[in-house]
Amino acid sequence: MAVYTEISDDELARFIRSYNLGSLLSCKGIAEGVENTNYLVHTTKGAFILTLYEKRVDPKDLPFFLGLMEHLSARGVTCPLPVRDSEGRVLNELAGRHAALVTFLEGMWPTHPKAEHCLELGKALARMHIAGAGFALHRANALGLSGWRPLFERFSPRAAEILPELKTLIADELSFLEKSWPADLPQGVIHADLFPDNVFFIDDKLSGLIDFYFACDDALAYDIAVSINAWCFEPDCEFNAGKGRALLEGYNSVRPLTDAERKAFPTLARGAAMRFLLTRSYDWLNTPKDALVARKDPIDYVRRLRFHQTVRSIEDYGFELAR
Amino acid sequence: MAVYTEISDDELARFIRSYNLGSLLSCKGIAEGVENTNYLVHTTKGAFILTLYEKRVDPKDLPFFLGLMEHLSARGVTCPLPVRDSEGRVLNELAGRHAALVTFLEGMWPTHPKAEHCLELGKALARMHIAGAGFALHRANALGLSGWRPLFERFSPRAAEILPELKTLIADELSFLEKSWPADLPQGVIHADLFPDNVFFIDDKLSGLIDFYFACDDALAYDIAVSINAWCFEPDCEFNAGKGRALLEGYNSVRPLTDAERKAFPTLARGAAMRFLLTRSYDWLNTPKDALVARKDPIDYVRRLRFHQTVRSIEDYGFELAR
Repeated sequence: MAVYTEISDDELARFIRSYNLGSLLSCKGIAEGVENTNYLVHTTKGAFILTLYEKRVDPKDLPFFLGLMEHLSARGVTCPLPVRDSEGRVLNELAGRHAALVTFLEGMWPTHPKAEHCLELGKALARMHIAGAGFALHRANALGLSGWRPLFERFSPRAAEILPELKTLIADELSFLEKSWPADLPQGVIHADLFPDNVFFIDDKLSGLIDFYFACDDALAYDIAVSINAWCFEPDCEFNAGKGRALLEGYNSVRPLTDAERKAFPTLARGAAMRFLLTRSYDWLNTPKDALVARKDPIDYVRRLRFHQTVRSIEDYGFELAR
Repeated sequence: MAVYTEISDDELARFIRSYNLGSLLSCKGIAEGVENTNYLVHTTKGAFILTLYEKRVDPKDLPFFLGLMEHLSARGVTCPLPVRDSEGRVLNELAGRHAALVTFLEGMWPTHPKAEHCLELGKALARMHIAGAGFALHRANALGLSGWRPLFERFSPRAAEILPELKTLIADELSFLEKSWPADLPQGVIHADLFPDNVFFIDDKLSGLIDFYFACDDALAYDIAVSINAWCFEPDCEFNAGKGRALLEGYNSVRPLTDAERKAFPTLARGAAMRFLLTRSYDWLNTPKDALVARKDPIDYVRRLRFHQTVRSIEDYGFELAR
């Protein structure tokens, strides 16, 4: 949530001139995104987001992320569309950083998502999964099952600073997940980080999806599990089955879940809670308290994980099998 | 340079509905302004800046600042225009803060101002001074001559942490200024903080002035002295007489300087350097090194002050008296 890299007006003007976007009108650093520097740029041709990719993004992944946005846009998914410069490139350099310009998407993210938002989200997620089919590039999920234990080992000696029983909880859960993780589920391109701040609405209608910088190849239903964790728990970490039902049925109405996906869903939900518990724990222990980036409390994901451990079937998330 | 106050989507939607600005499309926290929280808001009627006034702004001053922008706008000065809500108010509340919505001004501030920018700036400043005549409200300059010594006394015991000789330098200079400060110069509403980041250009044409939150009543020529300090020194703190000439002659071509103003100018320039030396020194000593707000080095204003102390007449700033 910060502007890490400043741009001089001259280099910005030169950069914008390399695109066919008319005259540069304004450029404001915006306080969004924890990984990169983002500017909201107005030109006589419209509004755009200029992103400077900071150190945490691997440049090798950028063609995947930018290519995916082009692929999805071309198939009717409303998401930022990378703009090509006059030589046809989507990836450039600016102020010593890799940089890209994408169309600005109007919309507001819901700070208090309601069931209606979850229904819309479920449909949009399913449409995105269908549209992703055939995308030529591939990217493994670095924060998938095989990445969890190595990440845990980087902070496990200090886990008790967060919660006395955290080390045992994660170790036991990792053993369960490694043993039970479903193979052979339908695979495809997933967003992998579809939290409310990445989904825009205008007047309660979904207006677009943003931030594809965790997108990768994985089980499609795992993406739903990420969103169940992100959208369907109240601030006190109680699960809201009305929101869960809306999300799952919204999704299922566009892309019906297979039997295997339904059966595996509680395990996927535990895995998704584990992924965010691990990254938040690591960041919590390794981010100075007074850093620019707000630390997110890992305890929220301990609570989610404990809920998922009590779940016996997808019906406990509100999904009605009879339908 | 930060978003201090977050707004929920519901309260923002309710706030925007109280204005006749169509539908809310988007709202991005922008990394500008050190005092307040600013959002760039798009609605179906255009782009606006939503400002939440944080603790450092005295609410009693807000009618002056907002009223001044209305007054200047109505007289042809391109500056943000406060928008009135459906009950005619320009000042409201949002998220526990005083809040106002103003029109968004397109433009980029010059990160490396050239003489051409200074010429445009001089003209715009003179036009603003003329347009300010007749504004009904008044506000004393809290950071004017009478405020300098009390501010100095708040940090003088620690001044040597910045520079060993700083305490003596400021004490001697304050004595000179208190003795020599010109009375009876033409008075009016001044901007008092017209640095490059408050002046927008599109394609080298001045597109507007922003940030009137230090505006007050004072000697008009003191405002020029502030801008000479802010615009006409190179990064190594060498004075650039070409830029000085452009600024002064731009100003003089719209509102000719009086003899008294010309004569007093070197003293006004010393006072303006003192004002920023004092506030930067105080902030330097009282802002944690790792704070969100970047500290500005007070030494830059020691160097400016030392230059002004060598100056004998307004001609040394590039102004040609014969014209």
